[in-house]
Amino acid sequence: MISREAKDELAALLGPKGYLDRPEDLILYEYDGGVDKARPDLVAFPRGTEEVVGIVKIAAKYGVPVVGRGAGTGLSGGAVPRSGGVIVSFARMNRILEIDLENERAVVEPGVVNLDITLAVQDDNFFYAPDPSSQRACTIGGNVAENAGGPHTLAYGVTTNHVLGVEAVLPDGTVFTTGGMESDLPGYDLTGLLTGSEGTMALVTKVYIRLMRKPETVKTALAIYDSAEDCGRTVTEITERAITPVAVEMLDGVMLRMVEEATHAGYPMDAAAVLLVELEGVREMVEEQVEQVREACLKCRAREFRVARSAEERDLLWKGRKNAFGAVGRVSPSYLVQDGVVPRSQIAPTLKFIRQVAEKYGLVISNIFHAGDGNMHPIILFDKRKPGELEKAIKAGEDILERCIAVGGSITGEHGVGMEKIGLMSKQFSEDTLETMRRLKNLCDPEGRLNPGKVLPTGRGCVEIRQEPLREGSVVY
Amino acid sequence: MISREAKDELAALLGPKGYLDRPEDLILYEYDGGVDKARPDLVAFPRGTEEVVGIVKIAAKYGVPVVGRGAGTGLSGGAVPRSGGVIVSFARMNRILEIDLENERAVVEPGVVNLDITLAVQDDNFFYAPDPSSQRACTIGGNVAENAGGPHTLAYGVTTNHVLGVEAVLPDGTVFTTGGMESDLPGYDLTGLLTGSEGTMALVTKVYIRLMRKPETVKTALAIYDSAEDCGRTVTEITERAITPVAVEMLDGVMLRMVEEATHAGYPMDAAAVLLVELEGVREMVEEQVEQVREACLKCRAREFRVARSAEERDLLWKGRKNAFGAVGRVSPSYLVQDGVVPRSQIAPTLKFIRQVAEKYGLVISNIFHAGDGNMHPIILFDKRKPGELEKAIKAGEDILERCIAVGGSITGEHGVGMEKIGLMSKQFSEDTLETMRRLKNLCDPEGRLNPGKVLPTGRGCVEIRQEPLREGSVVY
Repeated sequence: MISREAKDELAALLGPKGYLDRPEDLILYEYDGGVDKARPDLVAFPRGTEEVVGIVKIAAKYGVPVVGRGAGTGLSGGAVPRSGGVIVSFARMNRILEIDLENERAVVEPGVVNLDITLAVQDDNFFYAPDPSSQRACTIGGNVAENAGGPHTLAYGVTTNHVLGVEAVLPDGTVFTTGGMESDLPGYDLTGLLTGSEGTMALVTKVYIRLMRKPETVKTALAIYDSAEDCGRTVTEITERAITPVAVEMLDGVMLRMVEEATHAGYPMDAAAVLLVELEGVREMVEEQVEQVREACLKCRAREFRVARSAEERDLLWKGRKNAFGAVGRVSPSYLVQDGVVPRSQIAPTLKFIRQVAEKYGLVISNIFHAGDGNMHPIILFDKRKPGELEKAIKAGEDILERCIAVGGSITGEHGVGMEKIGLMSKQFSEDTLETMRRLKNLCDPEGRLNPGKVLPTGRGCVEIRQEPLREGSVVY
Repeated sequence: MISREAKDELAALLGPKGYLDRPEDLILYEYDGGVDKARPDLVAFPRGTEEVVGIVKIAAKYGVPVVGRGAGTGLSGGAVPRSGGVIVSFARMNRILEIDLENERAVVEPGVVNLDITLAVQDDNFFYAPDPSSQRACTIGGNVAENAGGPHTLAYGVTTNHVLGVEAVLPDGTVFTTGGMESDLPGYDLTGLLTGSEGTMALVTKVYIRLMRKPETVKTALAIYDSAEDCGRTVTEITERAITPVAVEMLDGVMLRMVEEATHAGYPMDAAAVLLVELEGVREMVEEQVEQVREACLKCRAREFRVARSAEERDLLWKGRKNAFGAVGRVSPSYLVQDGVVPRSQIAPTLKFIRQVAEKYGLVISNIFHAGDGNMHPIILFDKRKPGELEKAIKAGEDILERCIAVGGSITGEHGVGMEKIGLMSKQFSEDTLETMRRLKNLCDPEGRLNPGKVLPTGRGCVEIRQEPLREGSVVY
């Protein structure tokens, strides 16, 4: 709990419309898109960098934790104030400050919604590339914190590849700028260090981003398989032809039946898996590549290969993919989404391993993922009303992530560590590497008040308290 | 000077063939490709990570500076031991440890020569993308330290976009690994932080890199202009057509005459500038794009547009570009190469500004650069035997770099800060940003013994001693 004095100072700084502190309001800020929850003592809505500085200075004076929050769509508990304190919501810092099309750049406040950037420049044939499925809601500040990805990561890279610089506020109130309109500035890459630091080092108050030009043509194809492993093998078969599609998304049979029932996107109900492949570029190239992708799919025993003939057909194919998680919510009372990464060559064996895990725990596990990146999203269905099912689901998820580490992969591709995966960090990294990360954290935040209890396990044996998943569905990609 | 005891311990660790300490040997290690010089007390040639740890522990015990060195082709004095001490040369750590073509990755020791990576995988149609012009000599360790670029940076990005992880040794002997075979690992991006830190934070002992597949077709075109500004304007004219060539290189009239005399590459002797454009990809796309580039060039008043019809013609066009600096050495007793970056839209006005600077100081300034990135390399010709000419050349270079900062650019695109540009860092960055960088440096290297006097200006008013340029030519790109 924060003191009356601290609240009064924050209220004086922010004005009556600049904060929330009544319990019925705070309850809305207990969550993000993940499964953990914790209540803040106050939610602040600064209007600019100066107010952010004011907030962190008051928080420093009273020793209060500070947690940044974008749209709250994150999936690993990054915006959950697990030690209470002040949430800094960037909802009112949502202006696009500058657009420089000639040099393909823009400057935005952290509260700008991801898709709004593309909407602001699309008439000039530009777009902002990272496209998490939550892009209609999630904000660029949250994207920077979590180093967000999306289906088109395969060709365009994740957020860190599109952020040229940031303005940031340290917990002592120091404001500094890293990078700017120019990429690859001299000196240490502070921009890269802050991107993906999950709000544990500084609060980002301004973001310099790269804009990209829209390609001439987009083609989307769907390949249908009677074996999930065949579908998984197709990914390396495509990349061996020196083709980089902008997206290669896979849905297994369990998932595509749930999706088809919910969206009527036209997915086959009896298939073992489908692959959604998108190609972009100059028309001639795209047409040539579609044929090569067709060959690769058929070689891996796809039973059918369809190319969307119109923008409507294309939207329909994506509709199924983009609304997958809503579809799961219709059929299962609870589910856990995992976010592991494996080398592409390990996709097929890992799918097999996941099937074995499902059998071992007697659970249904469905797969939908960014296959091109080897970024798998196994979705573990369970019923939390049945005793022991939640625990089994958590254990199944951990088995899968440990397998990802064992084959040279990682415990998260794009959702972040947050609270959810903090216990797995010591399986991913050596103690020396974690200690180097801790030293960096301490440098920026020596009192440990900035988003405490996230990313880095503490020294005490890495025991982390996991909270119960409480909600039915979430906005996920 | 280091003590007899320190030398004896290093000799015992490394064996008689593992180090050099005679003055006639040390003199070869005073330089890199830049203009500064300073003599080391000893040059160590470790054979593996354990010996590197041994060296830094002995250096720590005796308080001796440690400076990493690859091939010594750097252009900003990064490998020059300005406070003496031990040079750690990675010449014997030059093995390719693992190649994983299926997942498009490799693990190499820091002393592997850049081009040798491509040579090892090219028969399988792969390559390593960053291609500094010194790629036949420079090593991957040096590339990581300086975040090296090259002509193909435009499409492929600089070194940091191709390094997935590193193993590194801190000055206290701690070994830690960041990243690995998987890109975008959770936690803080230590790989990105170390890449481009110019050997001031840790010594990199292993590098995990991304390999790329060779494109189907390459086309190289040359556009010839009667006005350098028209040539500069073409760059935005090309990118406005949503084309990203893999390289867009510009040579102005002064440069192309020097180059033509030296290489007989077929450049016109009377032109004001030429643009070298390279396109890669699927055949149909490349052919279509060549036509669009032709249109863009002609619209900007190119008087001629040639496409290389064979691999030999293509090599000839590049031969002129790649040997440009040797060509300068033939005609001018001394020269300074600058490395500034401007937004693409500022290329034409900056060329005009450079011409004014040349007139102001009565010097010849020639331009050759990665135009697509706005990464300019003005080459300032002077005669150091004439009193005052060196000082004028230095001042002209600083005028140009300050202009780069003023238009939103940067003081280095790919050569690093090193010793040469340390005085300009406080013009590029605010004191708060520099202080954040200093804190990061202190964290890794609290005693300031790792490559001292590089990158970050000290607190004492940023006065840096510049040494006289002494050599006639250098391997540059």
